[in-house]
Formats: sequence, C-alpha cells, structure tokens
Amino acid sequence: MRKAVWKTLTFEEELKQKTEEIEEILYSYLPKEEGYPRTVISAMNYSMKAGGKRIRPIFMNETYRLFGGKGREIEPFLAAMEMIHTYSLVHDDLEAMDNDEFRRGRKTTHVVYGEGMAVLAGDGLLNMAYETALKAFRIKGADQERVIRAMEILTEKAGLYGMLGGQAVDVDLEAKRQSVSEEELTYIHEKKTGALIQSSMMIGAVLAGVSAKILERVERMALLIGTAFQIEDDILDVVGDEHLLGKPVGSDEKNHKVTYVTLYGLEQAGEDARRMSEEALEIYDGFRVKNDFLRGLIESLIGRDR
Amino acid sequence: MRKAVWKTLTFEEELKQKTEEIEEILYSYLPKEEGYPRTVISAMNYSMKAGGKRIRPIFMNETYRLFGGKGREIEPFLAAMEMIHTYSLVHDDLEAMDNDEFRRGRKTTHVVYGEGMAVLAGDGLLNMAYETALKAFRIKGADQERVIRAMEILTEKAGLYGMLGGQAVDVDLEAKRQSVSEEELTYIHEKKTGALIQSSMMIGAVLAGVSAKILERVERMALLIGTAFQIEDDILDVVGDEHLLGKPVGSDEKNHKVTYVTLYGLEQAGEDARRMSEEALEIYDGFRVKNDFLRGLIESLIGRDR
Repeated sequence: MRKAVWKTLTFEEELKQKTEEIEEILYSYLPKEEGYPRTVISAMNYSMKAGGKRIRPIFMNETYRLFGGKGREIEPFLAAMEMIHTYSLVHDDLEAMDNDEFRRGRKTTHVVYGEGMAVLAGDGLLNMAYETALKAFRIKGADQERVIRAMEILTEKAGLYGMLGGQAVDVDLEAKRQSVSEEELTYIHEKKTGALIQSSMMIGAVLAGVSAKILERVERMALLIGTAFQIEDDILDVVGDEHLLGKPVGSDEKNHKVTYVTLYGLEQAGEDARRMSEEALEIYDGFRVKNDFLRGLIESLIGRDR
Repeated sequence: MRKAVWKTLTFEEELKQKTEEIEEILYSYLPKEEGYPRTVISAMNYSMKAGGKRIRPIFMNETYRLFGGKGREIEPFLAAMEMIHTYSLVHDDLEAMDNDEFRRGRKTTHVVYGEGMAVLAGDGLLNMAYETALKAFRIKGADQERVIRAMEILTEKAGLYGMLGGQAVDVDLEAKRQSVSEEELTYIHEKKTGALIQSSMMIGAVLAGVSAKILERVERMALLIGTAFQIEDDILDVVGDEHLLGKPVGSDEKNHKVTYVTLYGLEQAGEDARRMSEEALEIYDGFRVKNDFLRGLIESLIGRDR
C-alpha cells in the first residue's frame, strides 16, 4: 500500500520528501537555544537552518541504502556531514575570506552576528560535527569497526588533504593574486567540493559494509560527481537565474575569480560536466545493486535550473 | 640505575625534560611541509612550534601515569590536545577577536600569514586534532571502549558546552560592551581555561581505566586547577615580567578587559587561587596512587614567575 503511493511520486517530489526527512534528523542534533552560550548557539542554528540542498547527507543516506544499510547509526553522520559543510560556508563567507553578504537568499552569518562570532560559530559547528558523529558508537547494533572507519574518512576528507586543503590553496592564490593554472584549479575543485561528496558516499558505503574494492569505486564515482557539480555551479554563476539560486549571479566575474568557465569557456565546461556525470553513471551501473532515486539524483546534477 | 639518575633531577629539570618528550611526540604528528596545501601547513606548524608550556598534554600524560597507564594509545591524544589548544589561541588572536599581535614572544599567526589563512590554520588544527586522536584506535593493545570514551570527552570539553562556550560568552560580552557579572566571569574561566585542563586529566584517567567515581573526582580537581591557573594568568598580566611572559603585560587593562583581578582585586585573587590549588591537592592526596612530579606541578601553578 505504502509502496504504491510512493511509486506515484515524481523525482522532484521524492527529492523534496527526502530533503525534509534529512532536515528532521539534522535539526534533532542541533543545540537548544537556551542558557549559555546563547549567542553562538543562535549563530550556529541560523547557519544550519538557512536551507540549502542537503545534497551531501542525501548522497550519504542513498549510498547507504544502495548497499543494503538498514540501521540508524548513519543518522549522526548525516548531521555531522551537513555541520561540516555549513561550517566551511560560514568561514568561506567571512570578511577575511570571500566577504560574501548573501547566501541562500539570506544574510550571511558574519553580517548578522559579527565577524568574531561567525568565526566561533564555524568552529562550534566543526567541533559539534565530530561530537555528533561519535554518537554512532552508542547506537544499538552499530558495527564499531565500521564506525571507526567512517570517522577516519570524515576527518580525513574534511581536513588538510581534503576540503580544507582546497580552501587554503584557493585563499592563497587569491591573496597572492596569482593566475590559477589548470592543475591548481583541478586541485581546488577536487578538494573543495569533491572531498565532501566523496566523504558522504564513502561513509554511506562503509557503514553498509562494502568491500575495499567497492569502496574504491565509490570514491572515484563521487569525485566525478563532485567535480561535475562544481563545474555546474560555475556555469550557473554565469548563466543562472538569481531568484532560483538565492544569491547574485556574476559574482565570480565581479571578484575576478578564476573558475572552470573562465579557464575553459562555457561550452567546454558544459561538455566536461556531462562527460564526468556519464562516467559516474557507468561506475554506478557496474554495481550489482540498484537505487533508482540515487541514479536520478546523479543524472539531475547536470540539468540544474539555469 | 636509570632511576638513580632521575632522582637527582630538580622539579624544573624534570619539567624541562618532560616538556621536550611531549614536544617530540607533538612534532611527530604535524604535517610535512611539502606539496599542496603548503601555506596553510606552514601556518599550522608555525602556530604549533611557537613554544608554550605544553601544560595540557603534560597533565594528561602525568594523570595517565598516575593511574597506572603504560601504553602508547595516549600519544595521539597528547598531540590532539595541544592542537585544540593552539587552534583556540590562533582564533582568539584574530583581528576579528582579540586582535593580538604577539604571543609567546613571536608575531601571531594572522600577522604573519594574513587573517583568512589564520582562520583556515585554526580550522585545520581543530580538524587534525580529531584526525590524530582517532589514530589511538589503531595502536596495538588499545582498549576500544576507553578510546571512544576519551574521544567523547575530547569533543565535549572543546565544544559548545566547554571551551568554545567560554570563548563565545567572552566575545559576546565584549561586543555588547556589557559589564561582566561574577557569574559570567566564573562561567568564562571554568569553560575557556578549565574545560581543556579537565579534558586533559580526564582523558589520561579514562585511558588508564579509572572508575566513574574516580573520574568524577579528577574532573573536580582539574576544574580547580584550571581556574587557579587562569586567575594566576590574570595576576601575571598585572604584576608579571614582560620578558618572562613573552607578551606585553597590562594588555587586559589596555583592552578594558574584566578579569578576576579587576573584579576582586589582586589580594583576593591571589588568595582564591591558593585556596583552589589547596583543594585540588586535597583531592589529589585522596587517591591511593602517587606521582610526585604531578603533585609538584599542581603546587607550582600558584608560584609562577612574576
């Protein structure tokens, strides 16, 4: 009966429903706005509740389901992943970094709470991500070794040789006003966006108990997805609709930012994103398990509203 | 033979030796300065190698030894603790926060590397702290449950209801230019300084396998030590020797900062610090185990060079 109803949902409806389910889990791990230290709690929750696509936890959860995961030890990791992503946005938006005043149609955290409080709110989210992920050890039926492995992936892909490395090279090149080489741009993309998509899908796979060989293929597939996703973002910044995006378009050009589009042109960028998505789908189709929604999600990445 | 040599060391010599041993462990966990992302690695290592008393890992290690710990799974936690402490200093010193230009006699990280890179260096250290601590799971003979418990303490005491909470209330009150109540100052001290000292001693105790009852007493003892330590810091800022401290004295007064000394006066502050240290020693003496060096360390806290 329930399955019959589910069958009638379009991809968009299903995505909306899954996003809501994920948000419910995320919100259950956020701190209550009471007692000390109130202001930083507000700033953290303001950042976390700013909307967004929740694409990383959705990828994590769908990969977990793809490989047969049925437990609840994934839930703390879903929340932790979105906390890490959100902390990176809060710090990226700082005056000291990109100095962005709007994101997702709302004022950024440092504009509302001040630069110092925004630094602390980001720190608080990063720390809470790990505090939250650790709760997976205490969930009944959780496989301890898998949780340890998932924690290792979570820290590694967010850190110096993952997302943070990409941010740092980006900031460094901007500060030195150096022209960006193809190699450097690839590094920035693969780390700044790719690493957390990899982390999401790999954690889903590891918690579901995949082999090392499968995990390697998931890692490669997620890198392609993450990079295609970032290229599409760069394309949308040039040809996108401001209202749909919730932020000004043309900001990259205004900031003289080197992107995939400025380096390769719109046409080449679009082609490359498509090629990467197709390669990702090929890897996906090689798995002996299926999750139609996840496949649809990967396909949808190269057809976002412009 | 070795013990005979050890016996001839003064407390100061022993402290120096132990500090060097701790630094060797810390340094072994720092990233190599090669390849991407070079600049942020330099900034992280610059902050970590700025010296400092390494008091938190020393407390952790000595508490571990006190309760009979003999393994090496403590080592990643020693490094992680100093990374967390250092990240908090790097972010506290930012222009957006205290705007301090000198610490431990050297220029602060944001002065050398820029504000944006200093934000990322702090983020990198916090993330690396957890990446490093997780390595304890992989050390031969490590008790998995104890490591999980130690990780929980590490995240909790660094986070929203620990150190970061204290920083946030501090920043919030400064931003609002509100006068600080006794209750608020106690909160800031107990969290901003107390929480990491608690974390250090509790992790040492947990990894050594103490009971919940003993752990509670360690938590209380460490809170007293941490608070006494912070009060002494406030006293040193008024009456200390700039050269010994490696930073300008009188900075609290210059910044119109409310401290234990401005709130209660020098005499009362000194008395309170002494009383707290004595209470800490009473708890210490109630344990059935002994570590003369640790006892000396607690005693020394109220007699630092002024």
